[in-house]
Amino acid sequence: MRIFHHPDQALHRPERELHNGGFVAYAEDARRIESILAVLGEPEMPDDRGEGPIRAVHDGDYVDFLKSAYARWKAAGRDGDAFGYAWPVVGRRPLTLNRIDGDLGRYSFDAASPISQGTWEAAYATAQTAIGACDAVLRGEGAAFALCRPPGHHAGHDYLGGYCYLNAAAIAAQHARDNGVARVAILDIDYHHGNGTQDIFYTRGDVFYASLHADPATDFPFYWGHADETGEGAGQGATLNLPLARGTTLAAFRSAQAKALDAIAAFDPGMLIVSLGVDTWDGDPISQFAIRTQDYRALAADIAARGWPTAILMEGGYAIEALGANVESFLSGFPG
Amino acid sequence: MRIFHHPDQALHRPERELHNGGFVAYAEDARRIESILAVLGEPEMPDDRGEGPIRAVHDGDYVDFLKSAYARWKAAGRDGDAFGYAWPVVGRRPLTLNRIDGDLGRYSFDAASPISQGTWEAAYATAQTAIGACDAVLRGEGAAFALCRPPGHHAGHDYLGGYCYLNAAAIAAQHARDNGVARVAILDIDYHHGNGTQDIFYTRGDVFYASLHADPATDFPFYWGHADETGEGAGQGATLNLPLARGTTLAAFRSAQAKALDAIAAFDPGMLIVSLGVDTWDGDPISQFAIRTQDYRALAADIAARGWPTAILMEGGYAIEALGANVESFLSGFPG
Repeated sequence: MRIFHHPDQALHRPERELHNGGFVAYAEDARRIESILAVLGEPEMPDDRGEGPIRAVHDGDYVDFLKSAYARWKAAGRDGDAFGYAWPVVGRRPLTLNRIDGDLGRYSFDAASPISQGTWEAAYATAQTAIGACDAVLRGEGAAFALCRPPGHHAGHDYLGGYCYLNAAAIAAQHARDNGVARVAILDIDYHHGNGTQDIFYTRGDVFYASLHADPATDFPFYWGHADETGEGAGQGATLNLPLARGTTLAAFRSAQAKALDAIAAFDPGMLIVSLGVDTWDGDPISQFAIRTQDYRALAADIAARGWPTAILMEGGYAIEALGANVESFLSGFPG
Repeated sequence: MRIFHHPDQALHRPERELHNGGFVAYAEDARRIESILAVLGEPEMPDDRGEGPIRAVHDGDYVDFLKSAYARWKAAGRDGDAFGYAWPVVGRRPLTLNRIDGDLGRYSFDAASPISQGTWEAAYATAQTAIGACDAVLRGEGAAFALCRPPGHHAGHDYLGGYCYLNAAAIAAQHARDNGVARVAILDIDYHHGNGTQDIFYTRGDVFYASLHADPATDFPFYWGHADETGEGAGQGATLNLPLARGTTLAAFRSAQAKALDAIAAFDPGMLIVSLGVDTWDGDPISQFAIRTQDYRALAADIAARGWPTAILMEGGYAIEALGANVESFLSGFPG
């Protein structure tokens, strides 16, 4: 399988994140990439398609914010990495805010996703990596893998959060739509609900979003991913959330995935995008499912059996030493 | 002037707050009370009116959350004080969340307002203090002062934030409404916009909210208090926001206050509630106006000259050593 990655993705290096009332080491460590490449071998560099496909999904002011936020933070005399402390819970709206803290809250939903030096460059490279895999599939590959990092599925049209800054899955889906694929489906099998992806396509009927994830009653992102969220307007019925209990093992996960695949089959997509998180692994340090390394091959085989051209995009997974084996197991479930 | 205060208000003791990318000492220190009482002398204890007047303003589930949050935090094995790290920026809705972190975000809008041991008891006592002053005015006092702490004007129907947990001004206003006052006006002259008070009455025509505050383009709470927020539905026109530039001195502040008082006069209230912050003082450590101690007397005299029965409620002010003199100056502007 062709594998895409860009070395600039390592430039994003936050020092710490806010979690459970204090600062802890940033779990979405750049060494995640090294662990995976050590197993998969040398990747392809994606072409640079510029900001067009990014701005086709993300708000232009948000993109401009991402590009300038770290410099503005430093210009304000701040130490460390940039993150907010107050949020517009009554609703986002266009506002001219002259203080970086205001914009940080305006364009995020948590205090756990700092902007460091290099965050924009890494997120940009991640988007290009996703587009590279998408293009390979558009040109005839049965499946391709984008080793994205930072992940993307928590990032919305105009917000970051959950270690995510640009939504690679949404960018790839929109890129496929803009290149002649009439209906695109996204299957999100990260431990966490992909609230950003859901939000971006929530009112659209041309992109189906199905997610298996830890019940948001107990797990981040809490306010999205509940079973009653099914889309709105033209998107009514094109969002499917399947929350699962902590401790879920292969049998229940596989059964829920079959439900999602059946719903996607009814949608009849021209391309599938898989948001792959291996934080469902039973040794993940911040997650609570119990999928084993060999299980990923079975899950992937179930997906591959449907026969849709498939771009696989890396999302979460925080057991650094196990990432390579888990990703390799998953990719081995696809033919070729 | 009769002065109300309850000693339980000192029980709220957060250790630190998140600000500008790191933890700093909690500015809303319990010693603020001592500084003011040292000048004003012994206060009256308010009667205990129970939770009824609190629940007349605040969501019942939110009140239950406030009462239980610290114990739940400790039961989850956490150190220090309780605060959230992710927020429901797509909109609050009823959700059954089984993790304290989810509820902390559900019921707040910032990461800077921890819940400590004693927070509920202090907020409850503050509400009783506000009701005590309101009752004194209802029974014929021309003006009365409630030495509230923690402050209240950033707390909404179902959220805390900005050092605020229960909205004393809103509770007093509703209490006056429920005791025969047909129209109540709130004048908020704290340095920061009182987003909670605004939200609580935003769609109502029976409570007028006027606020002078630092422009939210540069100052907390950023997402509320802009001049184009004027109320909705039955409340259209019953919200008046007058943002002022950093560095504002008496002349501009007094002129804006006259505008607010004229708008309130047109509303013809049966009672006025003043949300008094003395963080507008030129030495305040976290604020950027330049009101001098003697200026407060002039501002208060302008309010008193309108002749409305007036309950004055303490909000912010963080220059601990100067609080007594600034509050005394303000209260001296009222007759008696």
